[in-house]
Order: sequence, then C-alpha cells, then structure tokens
Amino acid sequence: MIKVGIIGSTGYAGAEIARLIYNHPQAEVVWYGSRSYIDERFSSIYGNFFDIVDEKCLDDNMDELAKAVDVIFTATPQGLCASLVNDDVLNKVKIIDLSADFRIKDVSIYEEWYKIEHKAPQYIEEAVYGLCEINREDIRKARLVANPGCYTTCSILTAYPLVKEKLIDPHTLIVDALSGTSGAGRGAKTANLFCEVNESAKPYGVANHRHTPEIEEQLGYAAGEEITINFTPHLAPMNRGILATEYASLVKKPDGSLPTEDEIRSAYEKYYKDEKFVRILPEGTYPETRWVECSNYVDIGWKIDKRTDRIIMMGALDNLVKGAAGQAVQNMNLVFGLDETMGLDMVPAFP
Amino acid sequence: MIKVGIIGSTGYAGAEIARLIYNHPQAEVVWYGSRSYIDERFSSIYGNFFDIVDEKCLDDNMDELAKAVDVIFTATPQGLCASLVNDDVLNKVKIIDLSADFRIKDVSIYEEWYKIEHKAPQYIEEAVYGLCEINREDIRKARLVANPGCYTTCSILTAYPLVKEKLIDPHTLIVDALSGTSGAGRGAKTANLFCEVNESAKPYGVANHRHTPEIEEQLGYAAGEEITINFTPHLAPMNRGILATEYASLVKKPDGSLPTEDEIRSAYEKYYKDEKFVRILPEGTYPETRWVECSNYVDIGWKIDKRTDRIIMMGALDNLVKGAAGQAVQNMNLVFGLDETMGLDMVPAFP
Amino acid sequence: MIKVGIIGSTGYAGAEIARLIYNHPQAEVVWYGSRSYIDERFSSIYGNFFDIVDEKCLDDNMDELAKAVDVIFTATPQGLCASLVNDDVLNKVKIIDLSADFRIKDVSIYEEWYKIEHKAPQYIEEAVYGLCEINREDIRKARLVANPGCYTTCSILTAYPLVKEKLIDPHTLIVDALSGTSGAGRGAKTANLFCEVNESAKPYGVANHRHTPEIEEQLGYAAGEEITINFTPHLAPMNRGILATEYASLVKKPDGSLPTEDEIRSAYEKYYKDEKFVRILPEGTYPETRWVECSNYVDIGWKIDKRTDRIIMMGALDNLVKGAAGQAVQNMNLVFGLDETMGLDMVPAFP
Amino acid sequence: MIKVGIIGSTGYAGAEIARLIYNHPQAEVVWYGSRSYIDERFSSIYGNFFDIVDEKCLDDNMDELAKAVDVIFTATPQGLCASLVNDDVLNKVKIIDLSADFRIKDVSIYEEWYKIEHKAPQYIEEAVYGLCEINREDIRKARLVANPGCYTTCSILTAYPLVKEKLIDPHTLIVDALSGTSGAGRGAKTANLFCEVNESAKPYGVANHRHTPEIEEQLGYAAGEEITINFTPHLAPMNRGILATEYASLVKKPDGSLPTEDEIRSAYEKYYKDEKFVRILPEGTYPETRWVECSNYVDIGWKIDKRTDRIIMMGALDNLVKGAAGQAVQNMNLVFGLDETMGLDMVPAFP
Repeated sequence: MIKVGIIGSTGYAGAEIARLIYNHPQAEVVWYGSRSYIDERFSSIYGNFFDIVDEKCLDDNMDELAKAVDVIFTATPQGLCASLVNDDVLNKVKIIDLSADFRIKDVSIYEEWYKIEHKAPQYIEEAVYGLCEINREDIRKARLVANPGCYTTCSILTAYPLVKEKLIDPHTLIVDALSGTSGAGRGAKTANLFCEVNESAKPYGVANHRHTPEIEEQLGYAAGEEITINFTPHLAPMNRGILATEYASLVKKPDGSLPTEDEIRSAYEKYYKDEKFVRILPEGTYPETRWVECSNYVDIGWKIDKRTDRIIMMGALDNLVKGAAGQAVQNMNLVFGLDETMGLDMVPAFP
Repeated sequence: MIKVGIIGSTGYAGAEIARLIYNHPQAEVVWYGSRSYIDERFSSIYGNFFDIVDEKCLDDNMDELAKAVDVIFTATPQGLCASLVNDDVLNKVKIIDLSADFRIKDVSIYEEWYKIEHKAPQYIEEAVYGLCEINREDIRKARLVANPGCYTTCSILTAYPLVKEKLIDPHTLIVDALSGTSGAGRGAKTANLFCEVNESAKPYGVANHRHTPEIEEQLGYAAGEEITINFTPHLAPMNRGILATEYASLVKKPDGSLPTEDEIRSAYEKYYKDEKFVRILPEGTYPETRWVECSNYVDIGWKIDKRTDRIIMMGALDNLVKGAAGQAVQNMNLVFGLDETMGLDMVPAFP
Repeated sequence: MIKVGIIGSTGYAGAEIARLIYNHPQAEVVWYGSRSYIDERFSSIYGNFFDIVDEKCLDDNMDELAKAVDVIFTATPQGLCASLVNDDVLNKVKIIDLSADFRIKDVSIYEEWYKIEHKAPQYIEEAVYGLCEINREDIRKARLVANPGCYTTCSILTAYPLVKEKLIDPHTLIVDALSGTSGAGRGAKTANLFCEVNESAKPYGVANHRHTPEIEEQLGYAAGEEITINFTPHLAPMNRGILATEYASLVKKPDGSLPTEDEIRSAYEKYYKDEKFVRILPEGTYPETRWVECSNYVDIGWKIDKRTDRIIMMGALDNLVKGAAGQAVQNMNLVFGLDETMGLDMVPAFP
Repeated sequence: MIKVGIIGSTGYAGAEIARLIYNHPQAEVVWYGSRSYIDERFSSIYGNFFDIVDEKCLDDNMDELAKAVDVIFTATPQGLCASLVNDDVLNKVKIIDLSADFRIKDVSIYEEWYKIEHKAPQYIEEAVYGLCEINREDIRKARLVANPGCYTTCSILTAYPLVKEKLIDPHTLIVDALSGTSGAGRGAKTANLFCEVNESAKPYGVANHRHTPEIEEQLGYAAGEEITINFTPHLAPMNRGILATEYASLVKKPDGSLPTEDEIRSAYEKYYKDEKFVRILPEGTYPETRWVECSNYVDIGWKIDKRTDRIIMMGALDNLVKGAAGQAVQNMNLVFGLDETMGLDMVPAFP
C-alpha cells in the first residue's frame, strides 16, 4: 500500500486527490496537510468525507512527512513546493507538485510570469513535466513530477499531434478557453461568490495568464522551435470543466492543397489511439464538458474550415481530475510502476 | 459475473445504473434496453460512455431478456413493468423495478394515485419494498424488488427511527422537500428547459404528488397504524439532490417533558449506527445536497424546537443514486448475496 | 425631485435601491454611502452602473447626510441605523431602515435574537413597520420606517388574510422557505462561493433564524394573540427569489366542515384585490420565483388538502425588490405622497 | 401612441419585446401573435405578465394586422416574414423583422446558409440592416428593418471601429463567442433541458453557424472589401448574455510599429463616444455579461498583445435585449422619430 501525503489537502485539488485515492486499491492517504485547518477534522472542512475519513489536518512539515509517506502531493500556491524540497526529501519520497514551480525549464520565464523568486532552481532540470501521454517514460523514472496546469493539459493535448506532425503552423495558434469556477480555488473572494459568477461569463488574464508560457514551452518542443501563442481564459458559471477551442492555419502541401480530414484523423490516432484517457471524437462531434465530468478523460474533436484554411481544434476535460488530481494520480501510478489507469477507471458522471 | 439487463437504459436513472454497474466488480450490463433508441449506440445518447461502452440499444423484450441475464432493472414509466412481468420471467431472473408498480400494497391506492389499471396485481404481495436499511432480510430472498422512489427514500429514512420509537406524533408529520431537475426525467418538455428551471424554484404536485401514499404506507408500518401526511415537493435549479425538511410534534413523556437531544440521537443510532449509507450528522450540522452528490449516502440531521414542541428533521441524498440507481444496485447486491456496498463505496463528488 | 442618500450602497440591497431610483421619475440618488469603498467610484464596484453613474462612494456621515438629502435608506448590518439616528436627524429627513433595528416592538426580543444592545430604543415605538399593504396609512405619516425582512414580507403576506379572517389556526403555522443567494449578501465568505452554493441546497438557521420573531409579531397582530411558529429557511442555487411554502390547519366551522375554496379566495381578495403588487393566482397555479424576478410583485397561491384538513399557502417574491429595495421605494413613495407604484411598474424579467 | 403587433410573441425574443414595450411611454402592444397558442391568454404562457396583460394570443394574420397596428415585429423562424410581406403590407405598417430574412443582401448566400428559398427577394434591397449605431440614418427612413442577429450585433460592434480605421487586418479575424441558453429558443428539445445545459459548455455550429455570413458582410462593408472569418459559438449554462472574444493581427505602421493603446482607444471613441448604448471600458477592464443583463448596453474592451502583434477585442451584451428585442425597440424609436433611447434607459440588473 502506497502511503500518500497531501500538502494543501483542503483546496479543491487537494481534496479531489483525497477523493480519488480513497478508491485507489493500492494507495491510502495518511497525511492530510493543511496549514489553515491544523487539528481540525478533514471531514469538517469537506462534509462529503464525513463518516469516511476521521483524520485531522496536519501542518505542512515536509521533512517529517518525507519519513512518513511514499509520495507527497503538493497542491499549494506557487512557490511553496520549491521552498520545501531538498535532497534529503527527494531521496526519501516521490514528489508530485501540482503547482507551477517545476513546470517551466527556463527559470527566468518562471520568475517573469509568476513574479516570485524560484527557491530551488537546481531541481528544475531534473523535474519531469507530468503530461502522461507525452512524457510517460520519463515520468516512470522521476523523483519529482511537475503536474501540468489544467488549461495547459487541455490546450496541449488538443493541438499536440497536429503540431508534432507539422500539419498546422504553430505560430498562428490561438487558444480560447473557458473554465468552471473550481479552477479559481476555494479562497473567499468577492469575485468568486455565487451571485457574481452565476449568470455571467468573463475573460480574465487576457494576454498574460500564467499558463501561456507553459503551453508555449511544451508545444514548442513538439514543433521543434520556439513559439508564441495567444491564450485567453474565460470564467463560466459551472463547477467543473475546461473547454479549449483552438485555431490554427493548416500547412498546405507542396501542391497547395490542405491536409484532408483523414490525414488529420490519422495524426490524432498516431498519438492517441492507445491512450485510455484521450477520446478522439467522430467527425462532426465536438467536446462538451458534461461528458467528461468527474473523470480523467480528455475529449478531442476538430473541424477543418476550407473557407479560411484554418482548423478549429476543441478539447474538454475536468479541471479537477485530468486537469489536476486525476493526472497527479496517473503520474503516481507511473512513478510506482502500477497500471496507469488504476483508481481512475470510472465513467464520467452525468447529469 | 452477474449479467445485467436494463429496460429504460436511456433515461437518467437507467444510465446511472449503467454507470454504477461499470465499476461494479461482479456485474456487467449486457442489455441496454431502450425502445426510443433501438439500434443506436448507447454512447451516442450518453456521450460520457464514449469509448467505454460500444453496445447498441435493444428493444424491451422481457421474455428474451429473461434468458440472457440474471437481473433486470426496469427504469421505465409506471405500468410497463407490471405489463411485462409473469411467472416465467420471475422464475428465470430477478427483477428490480424502479417504477412504482409494486411499491404500494393496496392496489386501489396505486390505481387511484397513478390513474392506471394495474396489470399484474397478483405479484404485489410477493414484491419486496426495496428500502435496504429497513427490509434487508426480505430483500435477500426476493424475486421482485420494488425500488423506492427518490423523495420517498429520503422522507422515510429521515423520520423512520422517531416514528418507530414513538418519539414523534406521525399524524402531525409534514414533509417539505426539494429536488434537483434530473428527477423530472429526460423528456423534452418546455417546463424543464434550462431557461425555465434556472433561476427559479417552484412547488408542484401540491397535496397530490404520487410519492405521498408510498411514504404514508411505509411510515404507517413503522407507526403501527395508518397515517396521513402532507408532502410538498419543489423543483430546484440543480441537477442532482433531494433535500427533505420534515416537521412533527414531539411526543411528551408522562411528566410532560419533551424527548431530549440524547434520546433523539439514541433513536437514530439504534437504527442507523451500523448502516454504511446513512450518516447521522453531529448536533448543529444539517444536511446539504453538495455533500452526497454522486454517492449512495443519506445524510440526516435534526433540531428540537422547544418553542413549538416540534422537531425539524432533515435528510439529503442524491436522487439518482440512493434515490434510484444506487439503491437498485444495493438491492441487487442483497439479492445476490454480495457485500451490500459493492460498487457503491465512493466518496461523494464535490464540488 | 426627492434627494436620496443610501448608507450601505455597495451591498446588494443598497445597489438595488440605486438601480430602482435611477428609473424613478421623482427621485435621484445624491449620496452613495459605503464605508468600505470611500472615494472609489460606485461604478467600479458595480459595473452595471458604468457610464451611468459617475459618483464616488462617501462615508456614512448621517448628520451631514441629513442636511443634504430628503430621505436616507440604511441598507446596513443590524445596529448601525440605531446607532446613528437621533432627533436632529429625524427632524430633517425621513429614514427608511432596511435593517432589523426598528422592526420589532419588544426591545428584549430584538436583543435576544440579534445578540446586540439596541442603541436607540426610544424610537422603536415611533417607527412604522413598512409592510405597505398592511400599514399603508401609518407609513404615510412616518418619519422612520422599518422596512421588513425579505423572508418576512413573503411569509406574512402569504398567510395574512387567512390569519386575519381566522380561517387557519395560527398556532399550527409552519413556514418552510427558500431564498436565492443574494440574500446572503456580498461579503466574501467561503460558504457563499459559487462552487459551494451551485448544485446544492441546504437549510440554515433552523429554529433560530432572526426573521422568526418578526413574522410572529406581525401575524400575532393579525391573529389578535401571541403566536409561535416554525420557520425554516433554505439556501438555493439561484441569485434572486424567495419561495415560502406554509402549512396550517384550517379552522372548521361549527358544523365541522372546512372552509371552501371560495371562502379562502374571498379572504385573499378582501385584502389584496386592489393591491397592485400582490397577485392572487388562479386555482391550481402556484408561485414560481421566475415569474417575479426583478419586480415588486408577490405571487400567492394555495391548495386545500382535505386529507389532512390543512391548507398549503405559497408565496414568491424577489428578495432584492419586494423583499428589500423595491418595498423601500414603495415606502418612500408613501412617505412623500407619491403614487405608490412610481418607479416600480415593470414587468418581471424572464428568462 | 404607437400600436404594436408582435408575430411570434411567445418565443423568448417576442416576449421580451412585449416586456420592453410595456414600459415604453409611447407604444403599446395590441396584438400578441402566436400560432402555437391561439386563444390562450398570453399571461398563461408567460406568468410574469399575470395581472398585467389580459390579452389572448392571436393568429399570425399579417394582412389583418397591417390594418390594426403601426408597426409589426416578426420574432419568428427564418422564412416566415419573407413569406408574409408584400407591397400592401409595407404601405400600411413598418416591419421590424427579427429573423434573418432580410439581413443578407446576396440572396444566394442567404439560401446557401439557411437552406431555404427566399420568398420575397424583391424587398432585400430596400430592407435596412438595423444595426442602429452604424445605419442610424437609413433606419429612420426605412419601411422594413432587418434586425441583426445576437452574435452578430456583438461581434460587429466589437470590431467595427478597428476594421473601419484599418488598424487590424480583417482577414485574420477570429470570433470566439459564447451565449446564454435563451438564444436557443423555447422549443422543447432534449439538448436544451436544464440537466443537459447546466454544468456544461460546448461549441456548436463550428465553421458553419448562420451568423457567419452576416458578420462577414457587415464588416466587409467597413473594410471596403470582402472578408472571410472564423466564428465559433459556444453554449454556456446561463439564461442571458453573449460574450465575444475576437482576435486579429494589428496592422503595422510604415515604421514597423504597432498601433498604440491611445490610437486604438481613439478609434473606438471616434465611433462610439456619443453612443448611449456602447460603453467603452477603461484599460485593463474587460466585459462581463453580468454587467449588461436586462439592458440594451454593449460593453467593449480590448488588450494589445505585443508578443503576438495581435489585439484581443471583447464585447458583451444581453442577447435578448441589444441582441434582439432591445435593438428592435431602438429601431422602432428611430423609424418613428422618437428619442432613440425611449423605453430602453434602464440600469442593467445585477445580481
């Protein structure tokens, strides 16, 4: 039985890890870390765990935690994981960090976009970017996994095969996305009150959302060159779900013709045909967040627009599962040599 | 492996059975019945099953189905199950009926409230009312289980111990409840459109909702006498969840004093202490539907009001799980001698 | 032109007063009071006023305000109005207080339920309870109007005629109500975040909500005796709206028969036939909050239940309009001798 | 008093016209047309009008209607208005058509995108495209006004000044938009049920939505050349509101520099400074649908992205008001020589 510690267990992502691990046959949470609720019963913060989990919340002591568990999930604000990690810890436990601390290889880009100093740049190189479908083999060997962002996972997986196969021009890529409100976290802010979010939709972080460089870096690897994109997130009045609608110009063939529907589909199948958690939708069907809720699936569809020589790619996932806790568990499975889908094999919940 | 057939698999309750059975270690759906979608792929109706279930929908042929499966769930409108069931079928398979056909022992009451003729009254006596926490032993031996209604399950379980222990006067019982909109089914009706339900709340079926006699009959058994109650359902703008708020006068002791908080709690614990799926909340905590979503739990709390000598009892459950599909699976587990919680042991999903 | 000052203009009720006054032909807001946002532009807090209102928020200086305006609305937490009011102020301006400070005539009951000391008990007797349909004539002459609570307005108006006409036994009255989330205010609390409220319903303040004594006092006047009731509020996932479902035993006539449908209707018509803002629904039609949104209407319906000798009375209103700001404007109209419906004559917004 | 007839008064847009006209000081509805509800009381279909409007619904007889009223609003499916209009009618009444029948000047484009034969192409040339801020003078003289689509109004107004001033390259324009569900109409379709829309977001009509050619035609006029764009609508779980996020490459100056923030703002102000219903947001503020609900305002903001040399333009409006009924009333005001804002001068409703 893998012993799991969660730092930041009382945020939405942390609690979702706890929920998923509860049904995982080979892992159990033994440390519910939460600096805000030390000594309070976890189930008094999350009533869904009432009568199921009796443990109280503990402080975020990574050194002590490293002795007590096999893997630590850090579901915390940027900067915390980097401030706690060290050789001693890494020699004892695996770390799966849900913050951005180790996602971006260029520390100056991290510091520019996140406006904080990186406290442990020496581990950036070692950290593996935990996008399972793309970095699976490296993840298996990792001590420190940088779990991708929610928008990022959706945005990258939706475009990756076409970038990799050079079917689209990555410099023309525009990602327009929307997210359910759980992505904004559980902090008590006026802007996230029910009456402010309900019956409204709004863009935010326009041209400067922090997931932008993460998408650019990863799709840049796929493209084999640096790319710069537009990414615009929107807040939608729903609890869970990310929907990314992405636009790019198709790369014409030497004869001037566009890639065909079959060629596009072949590219997606080349990378995702055997991927349990990526579902390639049939022609004419597009992703809807309702079909992936509470699951680890990413649904992907597209439409070639011959009028504009562009393709519209669309992806949907649950921001708390494949966009956070589910992918973190998938990474844990890889790191510990388990079946990658263990504990994640549920049908999305609807309605 | 228990072979499962679902008649009415494309309603919300039917699809929820399919979802739960998919994660059940000892059962599998082999017949997705749906008269409306014959020969259409089940996953084209419920996109959450895409890439997970490949089967097409089949007609509602109960005779053929009886040969093919071990248990049939009928998640269909009132009258259908009664019109299909016969000795031959009951000798071959177990039937768990999610409609009201076999819930009410007095056929005249059924016919009065449902305004249809009962087609198989000869099986009413045999049928076991599938409220697992109360009729567990009879269910184990049943061929035909009448799965309780959603409001009913919540209303009965919330008041049952106090009625049974004669701590409240059942003739004063008033049940005021609200339900998420999935309880209204998937039929295309104007009244259930998003814009009609969203931002609104409304009572319906006032003083004549069909779950009334079901509650009265079952709580009447507990009381040892016939009772007549008020039951008022309301529609709320959410997908899942039932919340019942129930009022009754406390029965005074010979010395004129009211039952104490401890006596009330003892009564609840007497009946539910060992019940996995009933959670008795601590004093001062009341049920909220968010804490039971996508789970088989019923949360129960109460408040003694010394100003009015009444008690307010409150219960919450997920209408599609404990209120329908989950309880149906729980009944299946009992009927087949399995661990009653098999396939149902998940933490409620939040947010 | 009546000059209006609002103390607490940046709460939901305060901003709704500003919205209604903007369309009032004989009044204008000249003082946007908000201790939290002094010197900030009102429209930077409420973006709906952008390009419409340029004023900045001012401090809550009642003495200065008394010189500058004709009427002050206090849309503030309990205790503030009582702490600011004095003879000098009352001689200069009319005050319409949306808090509970002057609603309850018995100061000990106020202090018991609100847990604060009353700072100006000498004005309680003078203050007029601003339920326009019932106290119209007194309001016209008032200097200080105690604007009723949102639940209270709905609960009282729904039962008033039947209590007054002694058609129901007021001692059996149970009020079960639900409210949209704007009733919880704009404070940044975790419990009111979108993800906590959405997809959930919950009771709160069970047997101790502060609107209870207010309902009891007013319906007690109607009954001609003291009454004690049960009142249970619930939070529902919608922005606006209150729905009250009320239960009471019908008073039998000397011959043992129940009041008839016609007698009930006559009682409602006796009090509300000429009331612009009370709509008596036809038999078989019940109130829904969607039909009163953004309006000053209260919709009322009922159902006699001959099985239990009870009547179920139902009322719906918009908590921010008839439940707060709209009724406050209606009171202002009365106080200043204007047409009572001025500025309030709009069709409810749907969908 | 202008006499108004509405054909299609029981759709969401038709009922919104009725609601707005009710508060219009110089117009009144005298004909509630609704083929589906002939002889039923309008207020039995729209309960918000209970006790306010007593009229029954009438058939769609345009010839008779032309004698009875001064202006006809057709809030009907495509094709109906074109099939009813004729010289006799146009000589008697003004027609404001909310369908697409007379929006597109090239009848072959209309027939290609809408898949129906145009029944009255002889009036297309005469019809004036009713985007008030752009075609004001022509509208004043029109007999037949083609009221713009909801997505269209938002998409065009958001980009218009920058296209007109050649600050962006219109051939790079991508419009990504989302709409509340009232845009889908009141027809009873499974896809629009509460449980299907709630907690979900989805794209639809990808690369073939019918508002595309309308946007292209109008912005083409502004650009002085034919343009082809991408337009992707999404359905969001809210009643009202359209949010358009638009991307285009900025046109560099001869010296290679981009337009400045000031130049962009000047362009918007050139066209909208005196426009009552267009609100140009301050730098760093972006439109949110909550701030325009139930009003005729369009809020517009933008962000220059120097990393990609693109500009992101954003617009928000209420699809039933500025996107349909409000603009229709604005057109009526122009046609009849009234103050353009008459009956439309309300503060947006929030929350």
